[in-house]
Amino acid sequence: MKPIDRVTETAEKISSMEIRGAGRIATAAAASLKEYALAVQAESFEDFNQKTAVAADLLLKTRPTAVSLSNAIRMVMKYKADDIDGARQAIATNADRFIENSQKAVEKIGQIGSKRIREGDTVLTHCNSNAAISVISAAHKSGKNIKVIATESRPRFQGITTIGMLDQMGIETELIVDSAVRSVMNDVDLVVVGADVITANGTLVNKIGTAQIALCAREARTSFMVAAETYKFSPETILGELVTIEEREATEVLADISKYKHVRVRNPAFDVTPHQYIDLICTEAGAISPEMSYLIIRERLGWEMKVESS
Amino acid sequence: MKPIDRVTETAEKISSMEIRGAGRIATAAAASLKEYALAVQAESFEDFNQKTAVAADLLLKTRPTAVSLSNAIRMVMKYKADDIDGARQAIATNADRFIENSQKAVEKIGQIGSKRIREGDTVLTHCNSNAAISVISAAHKSGKNIKVIATESRPRFQGITTIGMLDQMGIETELIVDSAVRSVMNDVDLVVVGADVITANGTLVNKIGTAQIALCAREARTSFMVAAETYKFSPETILGELVTIEEREATEVLADISKYKHVRVRNPAFDVTPHQYIDLICTEAGAISPEMSYLIIRERLGWEMKVESS
Amino acid sequence: MKPIDRVTETAEKISSMEIRGAGRIATAAAASLKEYALAVQAESFEDFNQKTAVAADLLLKTRPTAVSLSNAIRMVMKYKADDIDGARQAIATNADRFIENSQKAVEKIGQIGSKRIREGDTVLTHCNSNAAISVISAAHKSGKNIKVIATESRPRFQGITTIGMLDQMGIETELIVDSAVRSVMNDVDLVVVGADVITANGTLVNKIGTAQIALCAREARTSFMVAAETYKFSPETILGELVTIEEREATEVLADISKYKHVRVRNPAFDVTPHQYIDLICTEAGAISPEMSYLIIRERLGWEMKVESS
Amino acid sequence: MKPIDRVTETAEKISSMEIRGAGRIATAAAASLKEYALAVQAESFEDFNQKTAVAADLLLKTRPTAVSLSNAIRMVMKYKADDIDGARQAIATNADRFIENSQKAVEKIGQIGSKRIREGDTVLTHCNSNAAISVISAAHKSGKNIKVIATESRPRFQGITTIGMLDQMGIETELIVDSAVRSVMNDVDLVVVGADVITANGTLVNKIGTAQIALCAREARTSFMVAAETYKFSPETILGELVTIEEREATEVLADISKYKHVRVRNPAFDVTPHQYIDLICTEAGAISPEMSYLIIRERLGWEMKVESS
Amino acid sequence: MKPIDRVTETAEKISSMEIRGAGRIATAAAASLKEYALAVQAESFEDFNQKTAVAADLLLKTRPTAVSLSNAIRMVMKYKADDIDGARQAIATNADRFIENSQKAVEKIGQIGSKRIREGDTVLTHCNSNAAISVISAAHKSGKNIKVIATESRPRFQGITTIGMLDQMGIETELIVDSAVRSVMNDVDLVVVGADVITANGTLVNKIGTAQIALCAREARTSFMVAAETYKFSPETILGELVTIEEREATEVLADISKYKHVRVRNPAFDVTPHQYIDLICTEAGAISPEMSYLIIRERLGWEMKVESS
Amino acid sequence: MKPIDRVTETAEKISSMEIRGAGRIATAAAASLKEYALAVQAESFEDFNQKTAVAADLLLKTRPTAVSLSNAIRMVMKYKADDIDGARQAIATNADRFIENSQKAVEKIGQIGSKRIREGDTVLTHCNSNAAISVISAAHKSGKNIKVIATESRPRFQGITTIGMLDQMGIETELIVDSAVRSVMNDVDLVVVGADVITANGTLVNKIGTAQIALCAREARTSFMVAAETYKFSPETILGELVTIEEREATEVLADISKYKHVRVRNPAFDVTPHQYIDLICTEAGAISPEMSYLIIRERLGWEMKVESS
Repeated sequence: MKPIDRVTETAEKISSMEIRGAGRIATAAAASLKEYALAVQAESFEDFNQKTAVAADLLLKTRPTAVSLSNAIRMVMKYKADDIDGARQAIATNADRFIENSQKAVEKIGQIGSKRIREGDTVLTHCNSNAAISVISAAHKSGKNIKVIATESRPRFQGITTIGMLDQMGIETELIVDSAVRSVMNDVDLVVVGADVITANGTLVNKIGTAQIALCAREARTSFMVAAETYKFSPETILGELVTIEEREATEVLADISKYKHVRVRNPAFDVTPHQYIDLICTEAGAISPEMSYLIIRERLGWEMKVESS
Repeated sequence: MKPIDRVTETAEKISSMEIRGAGRIATAAAASLKEYALAVQAESFEDFNQKTAVAADLLLKTRPTAVSLSNAIRMVMKYKADDIDGARQAIATNADRFIENSQKAVEKIGQIGSKRIREGDTVLTHCNSNAAISVISAAHKSGKNIKVIATESRPRFQGITTIGMLDQMGIETELIVDSAVRSVMNDVDLVVVGADVITANGTLVNKIGTAQIALCAREARTSFMVAAETYKFSPETILGELVTIEEREATEVLADISKYKHVRVRNPAFDVTPHQYIDLICTEAGAISPEMSYLIIRERLGWEMKVESS
Repeated sequence: MKPIDRVTETAEKISSMEIRGAGRIATAAAASLKEYALAVQAESFEDFNQKTAVAADLLLKTRPTAVSLSNAIRMVMKYKADDIDGARQAIATNADRFIENSQKAVEKIGQIGSKRIREGDTVLTHCNSNAAISVISAAHKSGKNIKVIATESRPRFQGITTIGMLDQMGIETELIVDSAVRSVMNDVDLVVVGADVITANGTLVNKIGTAQIALCAREARTSFMVAAETYKFSPETILGELVTIEEREATEVLADISKYKHVRVRNPAFDVTPHQYIDLICTEAGAISPEMSYLIIRERLGWEMKVESS
Repeated sequence: MKPIDRVTETAEKISSMEIRGAGRIATAAAASLKEYALAVQAESFEDFNQKTAVAADLLLKTRPTAVSLSNAIRMVMKYKADDIDGARQAIATNADRFIENSQKAVEKIGQIGSKRIREGDTVLTHCNSNAAISVISAAHKSGKNIKVIATESRPRFQGITTIGMLDQMGIETELIVDSAVRSVMNDVDLVVVGADVITANGTLVNKIGTAQIALCAREARTSFMVAAETYKFSPETILGELVTIEEREATEVLADISKYKHVRVRNPAFDVTPHQYIDLICTEAGAISPEMSYLIIRERLGWEMKVESS
Repeated sequence: MKPIDRVTETAEKISSMEIRGAGRIATAAAASLKEYALAVQAESFEDFNQKTAVAADLLLKTRPTAVSLSNAIRMVMKYKADDIDGARQAIATNADRFIENSQKAVEKIGQIGSKRIREGDTVLTHCNSNAAISVISAAHKSGKNIKVIATESRPRFQGITTIGMLDQMGIETELIVDSAVRSVMNDVDLVVVGADVITANGTLVNKIGTAQIALCAREARTSFMVAAETYKFSPETILGELVTIEEREATEVLADISKYKHVRVRNPAFDVTPHQYIDLICTEAGAISPEMSYLIIRERLGWEMKVESS
Repeated sequence: MKPIDRVTETAEKISSMEIRGAGRIATAAAASLKEYALAVQAESFEDFNQKTAVAADLLLKTRPTAVSLSNAIRMVMKYKADDIDGARQAIATNADRFIENSQKAVEKIGQIGSKRIREGDTVLTHCNSNAAISVISAAHKSGKNIKVIATESRPRFQGITTIGMLDQMGIETELIVDSAVRSVMNDVDLVVVGADVITANGTLVNKIGTAQIALCAREARTSFMVAAETYKFSPETILGELVTIEEREATEVLADISKYKHVRVRNPAFDVTPHQYIDLICTEAGAISPEMSYLIIRERLGWEMKVESS
């Protein structure tokens, strides 16, 4: 298998959601770029640069909503080198650092976020987020007696993965259909979800269903916390960019769609939660209000507005 | 097969949700009681009365939430007769009248409710309600160009039945997962759902998920209408009775629940929508505010409060 | 001038809003029908009946939103007679009674509604409603020291008529542009408006701008009261009928519309206030919650649902 | 002691709040009127009628907000008699019936309302209402394991009476200061309070503090139920009458008020809860939505609108 | 005409609203100061400084609410010079730079903000704001098919200017009276307005009517965006200063006010929109949440809190 | 009395609330540490350091919720010295500076905050906060004619202290029970309260009752302002720490608790107001939105997140 085929393979896994979750696709892309950079044959430095750029682009296009992917690729591809070897090394180092920081971030978020869970709390989570589960697991490990309610998260049932992970940790868990969120909300003390993207004004883009969970939490005065590594924040949104909501295939929802004449499926993978419904975003840089997102983007992602020179 | 076995069979179909939907189970129960009354052998009038009461009770216990069932059975079993033949006849007549009125009601609701749908409207519906579909279908038949968004309605996917029916009628329809309701709500002009129970103060008990749809509608200033035959109103709630929310089996949601050690499934079949989120209840007796439910119960269901004599 | 021309004249005055306000157009129509019935020449009783029906229809079509018009015409035209003279008399009597009751109703509403205004209150009103002004004027006459804030009510500036009437009564009044309602709302103790139509579920249809005043009142915890004669309630809405919102001519808003190529004017004469924003409807039959509208329609307007025979 | 002095004595006890609670003052007034009617010496039937009217008036003026008082007195004083003895008897019978019905009502409310309390529920109550305590006590007696949170209810600490009564019944109870309501609200399943007055549109007038409890309940999606005998509903409010909120003495709050120069005390005894915050009113005639109050007034209190003859 | 008379002339045009709009008055003031600085005769450097300060003050007092004016004047007048010629030059340069940056800002805001408008969107705007129109026009120029709804903006009908501008650009536009905002809001995808002032906590002060538009947008879950150059942010508000809301003359609303005895006009030119109703503020420095305003003031306006030395 | 006994004495006064209010306990602790540092005998520098650390710890543990205490102690104890004398001096200087800055801060907050109070305003305050009273007093001193409504603040009646202070200043004041807040809220223009703790996302922890006042203010569109020195902000909350809500003794509420068998008292000293209900936090560093709290913590309290090295 040629190096570029390995990249294509990873890209396809991301695209088909075999690899899924904003964090996991970011680290998979970083690892794939490193592997490619170390393996690819190039005739010249220019050739190397161009080839790696093509590989990066291939990965970038797999999931339009995933800012984690573009942040990861940008961090990995930001190298200064004089020759191919230097560049190979720089890319490998960048990728390793991204992956390591990413893992540390999840751990740190678990430490910080778990303090918001109190003894005896019932926590609701949606989909399957490493950062959110890190918060829950850290609370459990610290000896707190907690209970989790997990949604199944149609259409891809990522909630089943979540209950499997929680079951392994020995955490008492209840599974509900997505429609039952409001029914159980009065029993919930805290909602914890992950993030696919957080925008400059603190808006959350996350797995379809998140926004109505946040709405139900607000209606019942239940706290709503987002667990998000800082690379989930989107610099481009400062420039006004709207986050593209990926619309996935009909058959993910309805296998035999073709037998209907007047029916189509609308299958947005994500939805948009307004910052007014979010009490706290727990990042590896601390627990902040969503309105502080702009600061995170500026200070942690090295993004700079250059209005004069534009 | 003995007459009582036929009743048992119907009871089991209702219980397993092979027969489902508040309207359909009510008419199935009425028909089953008629059939039984005509077929059962009895040694005396007392014996007949007792046997039919047993059959009625058997049907009554199948679905605890369904007031339509108890209203139907009470209406069918309200007979005055001097002998077995008279009673058989009375039960048969009652059952026929209930079924006929029930069908007329659906039609009438369609006529009344369809006037609330305007040319070009997008209507969202949930689960599979005959009364709600009657409203949509009457609007379509009257020549209005409308679009429907239907939820799949986990765990039993009644939404698939709904899109099948709408597809047959040639109505343009979009299917969404239950989690996508808030995502599409800004495109919706009117939500129309059916009812399993309506209480004395206008609270709606309906298919799990209804309440969060109503909440999303309220948040987006979208109208929320309930289509309900008057036999869906619960007289007992005037006496303070809470509607029991049926909790169905875990396996309906998670087939392999047994492989988990710390996981259980919570599977409420219905949820509770507060009257403040309901703009209109469309019954065969007219379009009323939910707060008028008490009047419907008093006047249409012949219920009378007898506080002095109690 | 022929009798029918007099009716046409009145119809045109209503249509052009020379005669305006739900109450005034209803009494004008009643008076016009009486005049016509007394003056028209007919060859036979059938001819008389047909001619008066034509006249009634002519008046009915002038303003599509005005239920007061259809209620008035229905009340006036509900006659049983054996011959032309009897019919003439019956129509005249009906018209007189309608007009008299209508005036009494305004007075009675003033008496009842004025009790909700306390010494020192600031009352906001919109457009130019006889019933609302009756409430304000009765409070003023009873010796309470009150202040009124009146909106100008674009596009036809009925607020100018209102301040003229209040000025005559010696009531301290402030005029504001319609846009300033939220700005002054924290100084307002009570909003009082009239009604063009009230539906079966308590929804208010009134002069454009009313709904956003109600919203501003709700946001600031200010009471919102509707003053409405019972003939403003719409029986047809029980059958699901939507109230048609009259859209008036562009030139009412923008005289030189023709000089623009891509601009059109949207000029709805009324808007829709949800019953949740209304604290009280003050009618001549008492002060009720909006949800009681169904009862008013049934008991005061003699409307009866005949579902079985339909 | 002269008969009228006994009435004066009762009036003073009501006025000073030695006798307090809408229900207790109503029955005390009824009993006092009976006693007076049986004991008073009169020179003629006219003299008797006049004297009893004076006594009734004396009792009526003690607490301006208490509609229970005026309803009770009106019911007791509604007699038709030909002579003194007949009148004495009629008043005595009326008083007995009022007191008996009043006690039965509390019991019936307990039966009906207690069904809304579920096993394991935490119920918050305010002040000291017989009807509310009847609901709680009936739930406890029916074997449900419940917990009560009671506010102390400044300035007169009626909450201390409440916790005493609950302690006697063996119900687990927590006492909080009035300021702590929002703090504990997320732990509360149901709020149950009594009523001093309920108006024609379902507004509740009750012990100061009730309205902010209702607001906190609404914010946290907690049910809010009122337990009220039908004689707490105010017929006069249909005619627009505002309920007078009694303002009690400064020293009730601040004993040494005289030592301040620029300080005064504002001591309203009651506040006003809008019907939108009330889920259910539980009366002896059934559990209704607050908007149904108009019907209760019409049908239970024999009140009739006579607009035509006015 | 003497140099100072030219300044006076500009000041009067601003005062009478011949020149209006926060941006336009700021640039007019800057240009006027430049012109004056270049033309004025001075006996000494002190005399020059004093004369220009007088001119600056004259302009400053024209519109009390306009922070853009004080920001512009402060930026233009911030010069260090050794002599008259140096000062003339510095003022001219400052003025040129302010005007140029101000124009660039409008353009940049158009680029950034237009990304929030999607193909097929309906955008509502109020009054006549260059920055808001820049957003709309950039979206239109980028090929998106959009529609605009514009309010007429009583009392001065700036909306007519807006529809004229949009008509020139070929953008499909609807004009409505200010009262019709809530009526059309369910058809609106995005509200875009300009700003007169933005305070340190993100509160918006803008043309009267803006706040109730924001409220209507919130009620209908419609996005509300402010387009504002950074010189619209008010440094003084960090020190607690309230923004003065200019109250303009009665005759602007009611020409013949003098004929009334008890009527006065309340004519606030601006109103106050709380930051909770604002989704995004689009500045030339990026799209931020309103709560970030403090940061904009600190970093873009060079404002510094010096608490220790005060 | 030994030096350490003096510290113990102060600690006990803080613990028993003889010294109370977040500001007063902070300055008392600083003064006590200074006194101790100057007086304590130590055998070595290590011994001195250890002894002062013990004293600091003793003070720290008195009130778990008071971040002002930990901020004060940390600031005072942050010294670099080579020997005992240097350390004594440094601690004394730190303590003096803390106390002086603390006083200046209250004054500065008064200056800034008082600008938000307008002529004729009614201001509601709760409990007894120096910073809040500084705002009110500065407004009064600047000649504005204002009125204050003060709650009594059960269980410890700090409101009585407040009315005493306001009475001394000659400010017209009304005292209400805590339950009457919603009743008077429509008459209130501005709520001003102090703070015990402000968290990283702008949440306010303050005297029990504050949160329901904020809720009532929000419901009535009344502004809600917090007056808080920057040392009330909690750095630890960035790390996710929840603020511990101190639960005080039962007897503070109910002296004879022991006579009950099933009653316990719940006596939280503080409650939690979400940042969405706070319009402005007025600090000595300026008036900011609550969401800016993170920035205050970073810049004013020298707190730094060190995620990489952790």
